[in-house]
Amino acid sequence: MEQELKQELQRNRSFMKCPIFTESMGKSDQSRGLPHPPHGKPTKNPVALLEFDTVPLVEPSYTNILEARRSIRVFDENATITQSQLAFILHTAQGIQGARGKDEAFTLRAVPSGGARHPFETYIAIRAVDGLEPGFYYYAPAATSGQKRVVLEFLHPITNYAEQITDMLVGQKWAAKSQATIFLSCVPYKAEWRYRELAHRVVLIDLGHVGQNIMLSATALGLGSCCIAAYDQQLCDKNLALDGEDEYTVYAVPIGKT
Amino acid sequence: MEQELKQELQRNRSFMKCPIFTESMGKSDQSRGLPHPPHGKPTKNPVALLEFDTVPLVEPSYTNILEARRSIRVFDENATITQSQLAFILHTAQGIQGARGKDEAFTLRAVPSGGARHPFETYIAIRAVDGLEPGFYYYAPAATSGQKRVVLEFLHPITNYAEQITDMLVGQKWAAKSQATIFLSCVPYKAEWRYRELAHRVVLIDLGHVGQNIMLSATALGLGSCCIAAYDQQLCDKNLALDGEDEYTVYAVPIGKT
Repeated sequence: MEQELKQELQRNRSFMKCPIFTESMGKSDQSRGLPHPPHGKPTKNPVALLEFDTVPLVEPSYTNILEARRSIRVFDENATITQSQLAFILHTAQGIQGARGKDEAFTLRAVPSGGARHPFETYIAIRAVDGLEPGFYYYAPAATSGQKRVVLEFLHPITNYAEQITDMLVGQKWAAKSQATIFLSCVPYKAEWRYRELAHRVVLIDLGHVGQNIMLSATALGLGSCCIAAYDQQLCDKNLALDGEDEYTVYAVPIGKT
Repeated sequence: MEQELKQELQRNRSFMKCPIFTESMGKSDQSRGLPHPPHGKPTKNPVALLEFDTVPLVEPSYTNILEARRSIRVFDENATITQSQLAFILHTAQGIQGARGKDEAFTLRAVPSGGARHPFETYIAIRAVDGLEPGFYYYAPAATSGQKRVVLEFLHPITNYAEQITDMLVGQKWAAKSQATIFLSCVPYKAEWRYRELAHRVVLIDLGHVGQNIMLSATALGLGSCCIAAYDQQLCDKNLALDGEDEYTVYAVPIGKT
C-alpha cells in the first residue's frame, strides 16, 4: 500500500515536469494540415446579456483588486446579481478579443493559452441573475468574437437547485447559495490538435489563468468567488450534457453577493 | 505506435479529471498532525528591493489591463527595468499578505491555491534590472510576510546569459533579450502534505493562477511578458540548484521592456 502510494506520487510528480520533445513523437493533426477544432459551439436561441461596458466596478484599481482578492464561501442568499456583472466576468474569462492566422485559428483573449488553443468551454448554473430564467446556460464566445458583448444559450432548467449544485460539488452547500456557478469544461482535442500527448499538463496550467481572471473580476465587481477543484465528475458532466470523454468538467467557480 | 499514443492520451485525459475521494486513501500528513512545510527558504544575505508602492502603473485600470494583455516575445535589449517594477510583479505573484491557522499554516496571497498550500518557489534570472548584479536570485516571500516589500537572495552569477537562458528555454532566443525571466518551481510535498496523491492536478491549476498575475502585472507596468511551459527540465533544475525530485522547475515567464 505504502509502495503503491509512492509510485503514484512519483508518476504524478513526473506528469508536472516538462517532457522532452523528440522527433519520434510523430506529427500532430495541426502539422498534418487538419482543420483546427471550432472555438465554440453554435447557438440556436442566443440570449444576449445586457452590455457590461458601463458596469460599475466597485474596485477599478488593479493594485487594490489584488490586495482584496480572497476565496469567499459565504453569500447573501436573498440577493441577485445583474446581467452586466455576469457578462463582465465571462468576457474577462474567455471572451474572444480578436483572431489571427489561417481560418482565424488563433484567438486572442485576456488569458494566455499554450499555442492559443483555449481548450475550454464555459457553462453557468444560474440561480439569481436579474431577468434570467434559472437553469444551466452555455457561454458562446465565438458568437461575439471581437465584440464586447456576451451571448448565452439556455440549456435546461435546474430542478432542486440547492440539492443539485451541492451534489455536483460533493456536499459544498455554501456554493448553492451563490447567485451563479461557472463550470469550465475541457475539450482535450482542441489542445491535442497541436500538442498531442504533450497537451494536457499545459491545459491544466491554462485553466488556472482563467480561474484567476474570474476571481479578480468578481473582486473588481465587489462580488465573492471561490475556485473549486473538487466536484463529482460524473454528475457534473451529466448535468452539463458532456460526454465525459471528448469534453468534461474541470473547474467550478461560484460567484455572488457577499 | 498509434495504440500507444491512444493509451497515453487516455491516461493524460484522465489525469485532468477530478478523482473520487475514498476512505481507503489513507491519512494525509496534515491529518496525522505532522507540521506544515515551511512557506519559503531562509535568506542568508537578503537583498531588499526598492519599494513598489509608488511604482507608476502605465495602466492602472483593471478593465484596460485585461484588454491589453498579450503574450510578448519582442523586447528592447538595450533597456533596463526598475527594482520597483520587478518587486511589484513578484509581490502580486507570490507575496504573502497575511497568514491564518495554527503555526500560520495558511498564507493569504493575491492568488488562490488549493488548501492554501501555495506549493511554489520563485526564482529570477536577472539581466538588466537597475542596481542589481546580473545573476540568479531567489524571491523569499516569507521574509516579508504581511508587508508590501520584496526581498531577494542572490544565488550565483550567470555566465554567458544569452546562451544559458536560450538553452534553458530550449532555443527560444527572444527570451534572453528580456530584462529578467521569472522561473517558478514546484515543491510537491507542500501540497502532498494535505492532498497526498490528489495534489498534483490542483498544483498545475494553481500555477496558472500565478502566471496570470505575472502577465497582468507586467501589462499594468507597460512591460511585456510571455508564459513558457516548454523548457529544458534538467538544465533549468541544475541552474536553479533544484534537486529535480523534491523541487523542480514548472514555468518560466520572461518580462521586459517592449
